Amino acid sequence: MIGVFDSGIGGLTIVRELLRRLPGFRLIYFGDTARTPYGTKSPETIITYAIEDTKFLLEHGAKIIVIACHSASSVATEALRERFPGVPIFEVVTPSVKKALAVTRKKIIGVIGTRATISSGVYQRKVATLAPEVKVYGNACPLLVPLVEEGWLKKPETRRIVKKCLIPLKMRGIDTLVLGCTHYPVLKPIIQAKAGKRVTLVDPAEEVAQEVVQYLERNPQIRKELAGGEEHEIYVSDLTEAFEKIARLFMGRKVLLRKADCEIAHTIKPGKI
Amino acid sequence: MIGVFDSGIGGLTIVRELLRRLPGFRLIYFGDTARTPYGTKSPETIITYAIEDTKFLLEHGAKIIVIACHSASSVATEALRERFPGVPIFEVVTPSVKKALAVTRKKIIGVIGTRATISSGVYQRKVATLAPEVKVYGNACPLLVPLVEEGWLKKPETRRIVKKCLIPLKMRGIDTLVLGCTHYPVLKPIIQAKAGKRVTLVDPAEEVAQEVVQYLERNPQIRKELAGGEEHEIYVSDLTEAFEKIARLFMGRKVLLRKADCEIAHTIKPGKI
Repeated sequence: MIGVFDSGIGGLTIVRELLRRLPGFRLIYFGDTARTPYGTKSPETIITYAIEDTKFLLEHGAKIIVIACHSASSVATEALRERFPGVPIFEVVTPSVKKALAVTRKKIIGVIGTRATISSGVYQRKVATLAPEVKVYGNACPLLVPLVEEGWLKKPETRRIVKKCLIPLKMRGIDTLVLGCTHYPVLKPIIQAKAGKRVTLVDPAEEVAQEVVQYLERNPQIRKELAGGEEHEIYVSDLTEAFEKIARLFMGRKVLLRKADCEIAHTIKPGKI
Repeated sequence: MIGVFDSGIGGLTIVRELLRRLPGFRLIYFGDTARTPYGTKSPETIITYAIEDTKFLLEHGAKIIVIACHSASSVATEALRERFPGVPIFEVVTPSVKKALAVTRKKIIGVIGTRATISSGVYQRKVATLAPEVKVYGNACPLLVPLVEEGWLKKPETRRIVKKCLIPLKMRGIDTLVLGCTHYPVLKPIIQAKAGKRVTLVDPAEEVAQEVVQYLERNPQIRKELAGGEEHEIYVSDLTEAFEKIARLFMGRKVLLRKADCEIAHTIKPGKI
């Protein structure tokens, strides 16, 4: 199975894209709704969570892992590859950077994301390696996630907040904008309107799905192992009506969310605080 | 020590109030920033977390427990009292209800809070027991927490969102409004302006602190045990610069946050999903 994890429900945008491009492949998803969001938390905590999420997927049959969460992709990819050396691990940052480099004409790219993603500086590092002449500017827009989760997709408050969020990037003269959080693609119309029609939006869901497709084409043996079946399993660590509603928003249709039977517990080491 | 826990940083408003009224008492705080927020999660998950938070405080010397988090107070108080039968446990809902009943003239009370708090129906149940002739209307305002955490205390977007949030309650004719989330008191000026000057705001931080003071007056032996010392310990399960900034906002001064050495881990039970 193709394993996908996310801090919550947003990663279903990537599931949707994978299912569209890879019909006939089984998929297992884990959304860590009990500890969502990741984007406000420290790199250490996000790494701990990402390792646990990956373990969950591997123990339940995943053979390759897609990190749908931008915050986890930004700070935990290296740790996951070290921890699970035999497992192909895909993340959302590199394919987004490649796409942005392919489309920018003015060589000025913008990225919006959570605080964890933007503070990590991962986009700057990747671009510096691949195309040092290109400039990258990031801006953290933490309010967009709760606005999307409330379903405020077309409200004037959302428009105003999107506009504010893009001002510092527009002032830099960006011509390409990476939507660096799973939640942002559902705001595409507003973001496009506020960014201006000359700015090309990069949707990481499309790019990472493309990456997985190409990987499977290059590795027919793995492709054969993963193919077969239409049954997808969508697990979450916490289940509420609100999460079900957001899942429908991201998948574009009703989704059966299953509560994963996992204990999420502090294990306090006495005497060490 | 007096133990206080919260889903994150917001509970420091209660710490501030306790320190003001009880100088000379030692206090230990645990903010579960690694899993914050609680208000979007299910009652089962909140109960699990609240039990772990309480254990942490008891293992580190707390003799009485104050649940600062409204979501945990709303859904987990009973479970905590069952689980820790010898421990005096204070919560924020009952004292807020008592205060609201004391000040309402028209016998119509409003409550704003997280989705978990409002869905629990706990305010309705408490009022039905104490004063069945009084009407209570609740409205979940999930966007106010991220707005406060971003420090958007005076922005026009915040004013507009507060206004929207209060409309259904104003239409009911409330004359008293319970600020049912630790984050809301920092928005008092906007909330008062949008609710109208005839609406009395109830700040649960003041009410629960008063409750603890009265309890200690009634129990001089416990008062004696808890008194002594000015050293307070403020622990969090995750530490970032943003959390430190919010802590300063809630305490009104710089606070030393210590990272609690606790593992926050999924323990996945294989074969049971």
